[in-house]
Amino acid sequence: MVYAIIVYDVQADRTPKFLKYLRRYLTHVQNSVFEGELTEGTLVEVKETLQSMLEEEESVMVYRMDSGSYVERSVYGDDPMDDQQFL
Amino acid sequence: MVYAIIVYDVQADRTPKFLKYLRRYLTHVQNSVFEGELTEGTLVEVKETLQSMLEEEESVMVYRMDSGSYVERSVYGDDPMDDQQFL
Repeated sequence: MVYAIIVYDVQADRTPKFLKYLRRYLTHVQNSVFEGELTEGTLVEVKETLQSMLEEEESVMVYRMDSGSYVERSVYGDDPMDDQQFL
Repeated sequence: MVYAIIVYDVQADRTPKFLKYLRRYLTHVQNSVFEGELTEGTLVEVKETLQSMLEEEESVMVYRMDSGSYVERSVYGDDPMDDQQFL
C-alpha cells in the first residue's frame, strides 16, 4: 500500500467533478486536498484518470509516500479535521 | 531538518499575502501549495504565523515529514514543476 496526498487546482465550477471522483478513493481533508491509503495500482489508475480530466490552466499534484512513512498533519483555521498523525 | 508541504485555502484577494510570506521559507509548487526543507524551529514559527494570519472560513494544512522520508511528487496539467523525487 502507499499513502497519497492529492491537491488539485481547477476552475471553481469544475471542482465538484474532481470531488466526486476522488471521494471514491480518498478522504477529503481540505478544499482541494485529498489524502489516504491505496494500492500502487489504484494510484496509477487515479493519476491517469485525473490527467485525462484536466483542462487548460488546471493542474493536479500527487504526493506518494510509502504507507509506513511518518507524516504529521496539522490543520489551522476553519476545517473539520483535527491534528492527526497517520501512518 | 524536516520536510513540509503546506496547502492554504484562503480568500482569493488574500493569497498574495500568504504567497509573500511562505516564499521566504519554501518553494511555491502549485497555486496554493508550498513545500521544502526547514528546521523544526522554523516550522513551528511558520505554523504560528500562518495561524495568526487566518481569517474566518480560511484554513491551512501543514504536512510534516522527516526530511529523509521518500516522497514522490507527480504534477499533471499546467504547472512549471516537473515530476520530481525529493528526499
